[in-house]
Amino acid sequence: MATIYDIAVGAALNVVTAVAFLLLFAFLRLQPINDRVYFPKWYLKGTRASPASAGATVAAAKYINLDMRSYLNFLSWMPAALKMPDDELIQHAGLDSVVYLRIYRTGLKIFVPITILAFAVLVPLNWTNDTLETLKVVHSDIDKLSISNIPYGSKRFIAHLVMAYVFTFWTCYILMKEYQIVAKMRLRFLASEKRRPDQFTVLVRNIPSDPDESVSELVEHFFLVNHPSHYLKHQVVYNTNKLAGLVEKKKQMQNWLDYYQLKFERKAERPTTKTGFFGCFGSDVDAIDYYKSEIEKIGKEEADEHKKVMKDPKSIMPAAFVSFRSRWGAAVAAQTQQTSNPTVWLTEWAPEPRDVYWNNLSIPFVSLTVRRLIIGVAFFFLNFFYVIPIAFVQTLANVEGIEKALPFLEPFIETPTIKSFIQGFLPGLALKIFLILLPTILMFMSQFEGLVSHSSLERRTASKYFIFLFFNVFLGSIVTGSALEQLNTYLHQSANDIPRIIGVAIPMKATFFITYVMVDGWTGVALEVLRLKAFIMFHLKNFFLVKTEKDREEAMDPGSICLYWSEPRIQLYFLLGLVYAVVTPLLLPFILVFFALAYVVYRHQIINVYNQRYESGAQFWPNVHLRIITALIVSQLLFLGLLSTKGLEEATPALLALPVLTIWFHKYCKHRYEPAFVRNPLQEVMRKDTLERARERNFDLKAYLADAYLHPVFKSNEADKFYVADDPGAEPVIVPTKRQSRRITPVQSEDGGSGRLNLMESVHER
Amino acid sequence: MATIYDIAVGAALNVVTAVAFLLLFAFLRLQPINDRVYFPKWYLKGTRASPASAGATVAAAKYINLDMRSYLNFLSWMPAALKMPDDELIQHAGLDSVVYLRIYRTGLKIFVPITILAFAVLVPLNWTNDTLETLKVVHSDIDKLSISNIPYGSKRFIAHLVMAYVFTFWTCYILMKEYQIVAKMRLRFLASEKRRPDQFTVLVRNIPSDPDESVSELVEHFFLVNHPSHYLKHQVVYNTNKLAGLVEKKKQMQNWLDYYQLKFERKAERPTTKTGFFGCFGSDVDAIDYYKSEIEKIGKEEADEHKKVMKDPKSIMPAAFVSFRSRWGAAVAAQTQQTSNPTVWLTEWAPEPRDVYWNNLSIPFVSLTVRRLIIGVAFFFLNFFYVIPIAFVQTLANVEGIEKALPFLEPFIETPTIKSFIQGFLPGLALKIFLILLPTILMFMSQFEGLVSHSSLERRTASKYFIFLFFNVFLGSIVTGSALEQLNTYLHQSANDIPRIIGVAIPMKATFFITYVMVDGWTGVALEVLRLKAFIMFHLKNFFLVKTEKDREEAMDPGSICLYWSEPRIQLYFLLGLVYAVVTPLLLPFILVFFALAYVVYRHQIINVYNQRYESGAQFWPNVHLRIITALIVSQLLFLGLLSTKGLEEATPALLALPVLTIWFHKYCKHRYEPAFVRNPLQEVMRKDTLERARERNFDLKAYLADAYLHPVFKSNEADKFYVADDPGAEPVIVPTKRQSRRITPVQSEDGGSGRLNLMESVHER
Repeated sequence: MATIYDIAVGAALNVVTAVAFLLLFAFLRLQPINDRVYFPKWYLKGTRASPASAGATVAAAKYINLDMRSYLNFLSWMPAALKMPDDELIQHAGLDSVVYLRIYRTGLKIFVPITILAFAVLVPLNWTNDTLETLKVVHSDIDKLSISNIPYGSKRFIAHLVMAYVFTFWTCYILMKEYQIVAKMRLRFLASEKRRPDQFTVLVRNIPSDPDESVSELVEHFFLVNHPSHYLKHQVVYNTNKLAGLVEKKKQMQNWLDYYQLKFERKAERPTTKTGFFGCFGSDVDAIDYYKSEIEKIGKEEADEHKKVMKDPKSIMPAAFVSFRSRWGAAVAAQTQQTSNPTVWLTEWAPEPRDVYWNNLSIPFVSLTVRRLIIGVAFFFLNFFYVIPIAFVQTLANVEGIEKALPFLEPFIETPTIKSFIQGFLPGLALKIFLILLPTILMFMSQFEGLVSHSSLERRTASKYFIFLFFNVFLGSIVTGSALEQLNTYLHQSANDIPRIIGVAIPMKATFFITYVMVDGWTGVALEVLRLKAFIMFHLKNFFLVKTEKDREEAMDPGSICLYWSEPRIQLYFLLGLVYAVVTPLLLPFILVFFALAYVVYRHQIINVYNQRYESGAQFWPNVHLRIITALIVSQLLFLGLLSTKGLEEATPALLALPVLTIWFHKYCKHRYEPAFVRNPLQEVMRKDTLERARERNFDLKAYLADAYLHPVFKSNEADKFYVADDPGAEPVIVPTKRQSRRITPVQSEDGGSGRLNLMESVHER
Repeated sequence: MATIYDIAVGAALNVVTAVAFLLLFAFLRLQPINDRVYFPKWYLKGTRASPASAGATVAAAKYINLDMRSYLNFLSWMPAALKMPDDELIQHAGLDSVVYLRIYRTGLKIFVPITILAFAVLVPLNWTNDTLETLKVVHSDIDKLSISNIPYGSKRFIAHLVMAYVFTFWTCYILMKEYQIVAKMRLRFLASEKRRPDQFTVLVRNIPSDPDESVSELVEHFFLVNHPSHYLKHQVVYNTNKLAGLVEKKKQMQNWLDYYQLKFERKAERPTTKTGFFGCFGSDVDAIDYYKSEIEKIGKEEADEHKKVMKDPKSIMPAAFVSFRSRWGAAVAAQTQQTSNPTVWLTEWAPEPRDVYWNNLSIPFVSLTVRRLIIGVAFFFLNFFYVIPIAFVQTLANVEGIEKALPFLEPFIETPTIKSFIQGFLPGLALKIFLILLPTILMFMSQFEGLVSHSSLERRTASKYFIFLFFNVFLGSIVTGSALEQLNTYLHQSANDIPRIIGVAIPMKATFFITYVMVDGWTGVALEVLRLKAFIMFHLKNFFLVKTEKDREEAMDPGSICLYWSEPRIQLYFLLGLVYAVVTPLLLPFILVFFALAYVVYRHQIINVYNQRYESGAQFWPNVHLRIITALIVSQLLFLGLLSTKGLEEATPALLALPVLTIWFHKYCKHRYEPAFVRNPLQEVMRKDTLERARERNFDLKAYLADAYLHPVFKSNEADKFYVADDPGAEPVIVPTKRQSRRITPVQSEDGGSGRLNLMESVHER
């Protein structure tokens, strides 16, 4: 058992490591050569240029900072990061980032008073007993501060009970306040936003196929009939998965070409490469010529595919982005059901153009529900049975397995150092690789489910990851068994016993989790600010690929918050804090340090580094709220289980009321605040519409929306070819309700103007 | 243990009783005097008149049927009931009734093939074993037909496993088909419906209070601004709970007056009554004079209250019925969120005028969530702890308790017959009274929850009642313990053990449930057709109160389906059928007889008797579907539990897939069909709008909607006074966005016209 001394040593060690990282960061960030690693956000904003062009006096100063004074206050970035006011930060980095930072602030707001109260009330209460000494059990000083030190049946547990209530009410109070603030921020953000294409646009999916009309005609007719005075235009969605692949491949080839050309310039000797697998096998060819011809080939293929996509009606997916004359029209279309069959003409608010996940736009409804079932089952198995494949890999990755598979390695492996390395390290490595890959695997699963925006993909993945962390890290560490063994326990224990079994184990695991917080929380966060991966990648690219300033721009990788793996990890700290607040308050200060440090670090990163790929307007907050509530309920149930073994029977009904009240509180908040994150109130959009109409009477909305929702691969010079519908509401259009048997050619994209004319004529004919 | 012979005797007894009831019914319905008891629906439709006015030849024939031939085919009503085609029945009785009958038909569709298959495959399989004989356990012939007769670990269980799959798939298939048909019926019904006020109207609740404007002005301004081209008019809601009470009281007094006047006419001696409690205490007065003066007094009070309601702004509730120019406008307003605060301006589709539950219209949002919590907790206790108050009453209602409370009864009670009666009967009576009152208690709970329409109240109550029946009748009979004891079991057993414990007990309870089906199902249904209560009440009223033809009209009580207690009881049969289909197929024919008999009987009742109080368009079907799915999952889990004790370990994973698939199937159906019951597709309403606009160009919608949503107590001669808003969209109205400080008098109801003028003027002024 760890003593206070052990913990102190651990803490010191972690503090030293973290401080070392921070010092290293403070040093590296001052070097001009690293400017693009540590301040990419400013480059993207255009307010900072490469030190080269700034005209440095000394050549060396281009790469190394020689100004000694700047080294003196090496922690100056911390107050600087805290200085920027919230409104400016929203302007600078978007609402998503600011609300993401609020998660840490929420943590501080919840845990600072809880820590103070716990240390003022619970710690003295626990300390002034000698149960553990009289029982003569092995114990550490930490246990003397925890609930374990209170004798069986003591009335002192009432204090813990009251504190459980106080903590719950405080947490709920803060959660409600935060929900309120975030909802208000979101509404203000949406109201203050400039005109954006997604405000006028609705995504329509599962457009039914029709033998007489093309998708584009069908969409136009449908909305002209059912939203007559609001419909403006639409943009069909093309199946560009192959085209996007070609573009991507071309870019890679271009990278190789750049690399060899740079090599040629430096060495003045034409480099060669092999045509086979990864340039390792096959015949030698001149690298520059080879890649040039490859690029040309792909470019041709791309052009063919481009033409094919535009011509072939099969490449038009049954989905479209429909734009309306006003925000009101779009809000109405997004919130209502269109036809009596709820599986076709599904409308939803269009995500931001850069937020669209194009690959999933064409999945039909039935397939969606099947996919959800498959992923549900797959995730269940991943969560509870992930140990099985890893154990299998681990049995393969032992010494005998390798010797059998690759007998020529035998003498090498049999050396004692190597052998012990393989035996001690490889099994752990398999697990570690799996855990590193896990968020990516979960992201793939979410993509397979068919969500249509990056933001919703991240949210869904975050939920999955949290469930995984909860069972495999939190419960897995307490019950010490794989989730599979736990599942067995849960199935074979009564509903009463499960919280008891876990609850009893909780105080014993406090030291483990304190270490976890220090390693994962403190050192991990300090490592984040260093951006080791980006640092290495940038300098590699800079050396091998960069020729022009534009290349350097591309080599810089600002990254983004990556909600889907960072948010669930924060939630783990909420869970730990809430569970241990009553049981072992000593854990709380460690969590406080984490929240404070992470807040400063991420604030700095958001200001100087990250470049969000999309802006969802804090749509993830309801999930954050839900997970903290879950943590709260888990903490209540586990405390209930723990207390049920302490001889205070009266406590059980009093504690049972807590989860009921918490669930009710959650339902209340859900009703009260969640709609602000899901739906679009008509009053708000009407206000914005009216204001805008008054300000800019003759704004050409149609031109503004022209190619807003075109797939990015089309956004080249030919983009203007791609939309078909014209302003149909300028004069009253009579839409035929009966289909004609004569078929209008569905291929209008080649010659949008005349095709459209044909259509309009035929509309007027009848 | 019951043998086949016992069951046969029981069946014979029940068949005899049921047939006796049916014969009695066949006899009674032919007597003209009972015409209004057994054919009220036709009277209400106006196609049938009292035999008196039909001009009978013999005086006696007015009361008794003397035509002997009509007695001969006394079961002729059965084919007659089946003859009416569905479309005509919808016309005659509404969609709710027809879809209610579909529940029985669904039962037949599900269970006829299942019964045939079970008897063809499972019964021979079970029969050709001799496990029970070799084991020498006490058993009955029925057990020989059940799964209990198959030896431990036998491969024959595979047949049961396969059958579980087949039954599940068949049930799901039928459920999906039925959902499809009902959804289509509903849509066709809605499309074919004539113009109805609720098609144009939205109920708005939680209108925020405003210091400057009255509720009526606020509503008008809000919708003029946010739905400018669609808003037509609105109707504020008055707090009429007191007024309605007075009207009710006056009606009662009028009844008594009628009674005494009739008595006076017959006996020619002025009757007297006592003024005190229920006419039992107090001084003697002349009854006719007394009631006349009472009626006058209440009439005055009523007029005062009427005036007060109209004048006092406090009696206007923060709710209103807002009507739109088109169904499209109403559909949009009902499906969208109005403001950024989701707890105010709540819009929902207005229920039919006669479906509105007026008392709940003014409950604010926060109070609603609190009420829901309270009822949730209360229902939990009612469900699991209802035995406690009943046990308490039972201890009071024993001999000693009564002797203590009312000592003067002692000699009377101590007579052996009376004593044994009290001891044997009273405790059961307390329980019986509770069970009879239960649906009413549950209905009160639902009313307290704040639902605003009778149809939703019935649906909510049905859900509660089903849960109660499930735990206390179904599980209570199997585990044989009160729900409280069960709760204890569930909490202290592992999740694995609960289905096992219940599953093992299932085959043993087959005979009990067969008896239950016969008594409750067969005889109960036969009793329903007799309408004993309505029969007695009608003849009592007819004798004591009826003076005019109109009184006789009122004395007749057609009743209605009472979904909230009849539907959950049908669900119990689905549950029994699905649970026993694999285990003891012998139960199935009994359930088939119930479904067939009930179908005929209720069809007859719907054609000839019931008069539905409202028409919800089969909105209850998603609940019916959900409950059958629940029954299916329960049956799968219990079968899993049962089979886990039979030594066929391989079966468990195969059976575990079933509930997962069933839940997924339910989710699919929910997504696919439920929206048709909840939302209003724009395409449909647009089609109806367009058609109507083409047909009747100058229809005065406003006059049509004038007092559609006026509280029924106002629907007298003064009704026209009560609406305020006029057609505001005829000319473009400029709505002030800034509030005026000058207060317009909120009391416009007294003089609607000029008040309205004021308002419109003030609108135009700015």
